[in-house]
Amino acid sequence: MNEGEIRLNQTTQEWVIYAPLRRFRPEDFQAQTNIEATVIDNNHNCPFCAVSEEIILEMHRKSSDSWQTRVVLNKYPALIPLGKPKRKTEGMYLTMPGYGSHEVIIEHPQHDRHLALMDLEEVETTIETYHQRYLALMADANNLLVIIFRNYGKKAGASLKHPHSQIIATSVVPQRRRWQEEAAQRYFDRLGECVYCDIIKHELETCSGRRIVGENETFIAFVPYAAEVPCEVWIIPKLHQADFGSITPKEKKDFASLLKDILSRMYYKLNNPDYNYVINTNARYKAEEPQVHWYCQILPRLTTTAGFELATGMSINPSLPEIDADFLNS
Amino acid sequence: MNEGEIRLNQTTQEWVIYAPLRRFRPEDFQAQTNIEATVIDNNHNCPFCAVSEEIILEMHRKSSDSWQTRVVLNKYPALIPLGKPKRKTEGMYLTMPGYGSHEVIIEHPQHDRHLALMDLEEVETTIETYHQRYLALMADANNLLVIIFRNYGKKAGASLKHPHSQIIATSVVPQRRRWQEEAAQRYFDRLGECVYCDIIKHELETCSGRRIVGENETFIAFVPYAAEVPCEVWIIPKLHQADFGSITPKEKKDFASLLKDILSRMYYKLNNPDYNYVINTNARYKAEEPQVHWYCQILPRLTTTAGFELATGMSINPSLPEIDADFLNS
Repeated sequence: MNEGEIRLNQTTQEWVIYAPLRRFRPEDFQAQTNIEATVIDNNHNCPFCAVSEEIILEMHRKSSDSWQTRVVLNKYPALIPLGKPKRKTEGMYLTMPGYGSHEVIIEHPQHDRHLALMDLEEVETTIETYHQRYLALMADANNLLVIIFRNYGKKAGASLKHPHSQIIATSVVPQRRRWQEEAAQRYFDRLGECVYCDIIKHELETCSGRRIVGENETFIAFVPYAAEVPCEVWIIPKLHQADFGSITPKEKKDFASLLKDILSRMYYKLNNPDYNYVINTNARYKAEEPQVHWYCQILPRLTTTAGFELATGMSINPSLPEIDADFLNS
Repeated sequence: MNEGEIRLNQTTQEWVIYAPLRRFRPEDFQAQTNIEATVIDNNHNCPFCAVSEEIILEMHRKSSDSWQTRVVLNKYPALIPLGKPKRKTEGMYLTMPGYGSHEVIIEHPQHDRHLALMDLEEVETTIETYHQRYLALMADANNLLVIIFRNYGKKAGASLKHPHSQIIATSVVPQRRRWQEEAAQRYFDRLGECVYCDIIKHELETCSGRRIVGENETFIAFVPYAAEVPCEVWIIPKLHQADFGSITPKEKKDFASLLKDILSRMYYKLNNPDYNYVINTNARYKAEEPQVHWYCQILPRLTTTAGFELATGMSINPSLPEIDADFLNS
């Protein structure tokens, strides 16, 4: 079997991706952990320092001849754009091919250049690369959702140190995203407003900015009222925008500037923590809707998800958003 | 502020628990990680070897005078049974006191006795302790859900090595549990059967047991068709049973025997992996329903949850359930 597979959990209606190209035997798991740990700090064998794959997109800084970002296919893709995303029954179960895309954005030629410490133009080029690949992947009508994310550090699931982000396009909409859409829909139907727009207004005005950690003309950054983890931060466009694909040139600059600012504060104040960030945007066909709103969610990995969280989806946060905001602002 | 707090994420309708008694300042997170790493392997300061808290329940083996299990309040509880679980608005947000309970079940007097390697009677006594505390916590009408779970190893969120499980009773029903109930309800309304009962029948009969990894008179253990992680195993009562509280003495014996069997196979075949297990049972008022079914879910922590999974709730599993089942059966 060369293609991947996506199976439905009938008890939760959640899809699970099986990634055969990443597959190793169960008995390899312990060893694998050690291999990954070795690779992380080693730049001699780094596959992003010397790219052997076909380069999908390469971007340059204005001020330089050298490339700054490169996009390549993930060598161990979770999903690949082969065949058609057709469902098939297996007895009482449902399965489908692992249709989708999985790309890596190499953010810099330099192996140990932290995104948190890049200059503004470098971060802008990274965001520009995100945007171009987002639009390109959304041009395939089979892709229903495009998720851009960054895993930084071992606790965040990164297996390579070289600065990079990833983009996964899926041909199914995750159940969790549907739940979020439904919550937003109910809010809109009741109150006639986008819940995210209301949160932005509430955070800026009613709460006198006590959870705000950054602001410029088109974006705010804040610790959400119900943050899942200590020092979680959302960066969100002030004007209603459902789809990351709709971001304007001015907004890209402002987003890059705030992202750089927050990451560098985390870097210094939290001693270079592992983190994930993700651009939570919306599924195709929701892109014009008045009730959903994209945002970038930064999740430092300072605590460990344990049995209670896995079972219930409820987080236990040992800090408090207001304390975290004060800390990030201090 | 002494009491905890539970806040609602308005965009997902998920509750987040804030645990002030666990609170430390954000700048302590890096240091804290190191402290925990030290405590794990140290039995001199182990708070479970020499318990200073009030003992809520103590159980003995039939064959011995010494205690085997002890139940105490968690020293750093996520929730405490103080006040009333009343909602309060904070502008557009919702909050409530951190009402609930958080207990620790010390499973053995011996600091380094692995559950996977205990004798059958010891595992039975542990399950009996679970059951008694489950019933006792459900006697408080404010508790809507009681979750029993075990974190084993650092990757699974355990901060202490001494064999223990935890029980958390919540006065809210997690959104995720509601989604599961809804999926089960729809299945039942369409097909007139409990989806879990149908899965058991399907796994035993239609699939010729290819994902089954253990069976006795009243339970089966299997790798689910859409397993989230490599070597995930469910242990589930064969006869329909919505509520863990309804387990019979015969079933407790059979559950203990299969749990011991699976954990010890994981211990030897996966080289003593970190894992979480959780008893996924149902909320109060669902306890008699024909469409929900409790099960014990064992999740080895062989892979790391990263940005894509955090954003979408979709797992990427590098193995395949049938391969895992063969491996556990080999």
